[in-house]
Amino acid sequence: MRSVQAYQELFSTHLQSIAFAKEPLGLYDPISYILKLGGKRMRPVLALMACEAVGKNPSSALGVATAVELFHNFTLLHDDIMDEASLRRGQQTVNQKWDVNTGILSGDALLVIAYQQLNQYEDTLFSQLTKLLSETALLVCEGQQYDVDFETRNDVSLDAYIEMIRLKTAVLLGCALRMGALVGNATTVAADSLHEFGVNLGIAFQLQDDLLDAFGDPKTFGKKVGGDIVENKKTILYHLTMAHANADDKASFEQLMTSTPVDENKKITAVKTIYEATEVPRRTVEQVSAYTNKAMDALQQSTLSSDQIAYFIAFAEELMVRTK
Amino acid sequence: MRSVQAYQELFSTHLQSIAFAKEPLGLYDPISYILKLGGKRMRPVLALMACEAVGKNPSSALGVATAVELFHNFTLLHDDIMDEASLRRGQQTVNQKWDVNTGILSGDALLVIAYQQLNQYEDTLFSQLTKLLSETALLVCEGQQYDVDFETRNDVSLDAYIEMIRLKTAVLLGCALRMGALVGNATTVAADSLHEFGVNLGIAFQLQDDLLDAFGDPKTFGKKVGGDIVENKKTILYHLTMAHANADDKASFEQLMTSTPVDENKKITAVKTIYEATEVPRRTVEQVSAYTNKAMDALQQSTLSSDQIAYFIAFAEELMVRTK
Repeated sequence: MRSVQAYQELFSTHLQSIAFAKEPLGLYDPISYILKLGGKRMRPVLALMACEAVGKNPSSALGVATAVELFHNFTLLHDDIMDEASLRRGQQTVNQKWDVNTGILSGDALLVIAYQQLNQYEDTLFSQLTKLLSETALLVCEGQQYDVDFETRNDVSLDAYIEMIRLKTAVLLGCALRMGALVGNATTVAADSLHEFGVNLGIAFQLQDDLLDAFGDPKTFGKKVGGDIVENKKTILYHLTMAHANADDKASFEQLMTSTPVDENKKITAVKTIYEATEVPRRTVEQVSAYTNKAMDALQQSTLSSDQIAYFIAFAEELMVRTK
Repeated sequence: MRSVQAYQELFSTHLQSIAFAKEPLGLYDPISYILKLGGKRMRPVLALMACEAVGKNPSSALGVATAVELFHNFTLLHDDIMDEASLRRGQQTVNQKWDVNTGILSGDALLVIAYQQLNQYEDTLFSQLTKLLSETALLVCEGQQYDVDFETRNDVSLDAYIEMIRLKTAVLLGCALRMGALVGNATTVAADSLHEFGVNLGIAFQLQDDLLDAFGDPKTFGKKVGGDIVENKKTILYHLTMAHANADDKASFEQLMTSTPVDENKKITAVKTIYEATEVPRRTVEQVSAYTNKAMDALQQSTLSSDQIAYFIAFAEELMVRTK
């Protein structure tokens, strides 16, 4: 097994070798643009890792790694339109730099190009991978729809919220690992447990992201701390507060989280005071730990060697302490 | 071989047996809705015909027939957003009845579900069909982009316009026929010539549609005659006028086709007078005939029996006289 950075570099070199820019430029330039915005490339890295863990050279998994990364970027193009987002990784979104129609059509093309990354595999493997991509893609669409629905509902349970996260973001991590494992000709047990590891790690990661948004270190967090509070986002912190706050705090909280404040920092402080009083940070950490533990448990079922299990555990721990 | 109506019914019965409506309803209801709007189901009918023509029961091709029809409806969902269309087949578009975000996300899901219709075929065939769907889908995206680009360009040649039509609409008809042929285990020659038949028939059909929009019989045309003129659309009639009109007519025409008139009928009459003076109807019919002939020629190369060739010729002739 190699360092995360080594997998990132292997993937970046491959991605740069693909010529996305061609005619009509109005369709393909936005695709080149979003792919050049970068990111951690977590999904392709997981695919390469899984392939090497089950005993095959990770270069064989560059096709699936690219498929999941292109699919992820397709979702970003369309999500940015739906969220009317103007910034992505500090740069203009495609819908901002070009327009909404460009974001729609380039996104559509990018989804198709993601499928085409699987064309290089022989028929039996191609069939498995393509069906997995379709199944995952549909779950991601369902997750996005639940996310939209939940923004205007007040009866969303904690379980339903976590299920939404599982669909919208976590299953794609599981898919990346399973694809890498399939390319590496893994046993069903190994593929299943790596998938399960990825899904639970994805949930833990997203829940922690919610926590860091409010309680992260401003020096290392990257985004504005409290951004979700300002935007009234219904994160895990919101759901835990609604479930556990006393009547007074709940009433104040509901009022705060439907407001557009003049003084953002005052709102952030008021909401965080309620979070603390309701022990929301501790409750969230409990959830994060529960899903991290599920991820670790899945690994133990994987029939991978103890060295490889230790590698994935170290990776998961590294990921989960990233910006505390 | 069966009647077109028999193929339509075979397909409709199959489509109705698929349960699209499930949770989350916000994602799947718009898919059920657009599929219930109906249409001629030309693409699935072609797939079923091709399968039967090469000697297999058309029921085997219901999967590919559904894939191409769902793909077509995916393009309608996203095109209606890009065109800001509020009506489709006399009913509200999804972006009108729901909203733009719903149209985007339901469209994405529909594209994925189109791919999934191919899951039922064995791996070798699945691989061929899926790669063909991806290749065709990307060409359709390119065609849509050229269509968008051409609306704001004044240097588009007739050849470039026809190439745009080939990509945006005709290749999907070719794809439908080739998929049906592949399911029927056709020879490469038969699959290639049916594909070529479909593409050329598609171009002929679209060019004739442009002509009928201005010169069709109001009683049978279905849409408002002259709609393209009112909306300043750059159809084949526009391109032939720009290429062949005398200087005076060209100047008047350019002015008319950049205007939003108070009296629509007056504009339609003025533009049609220039079309007639420039012999645009005759020139368009020549183009329609040229592509219809190419379609017929392709059939002759198909190694199908003379009865089957006669069947497709009769189908093409029926299609091309539909609303004269």
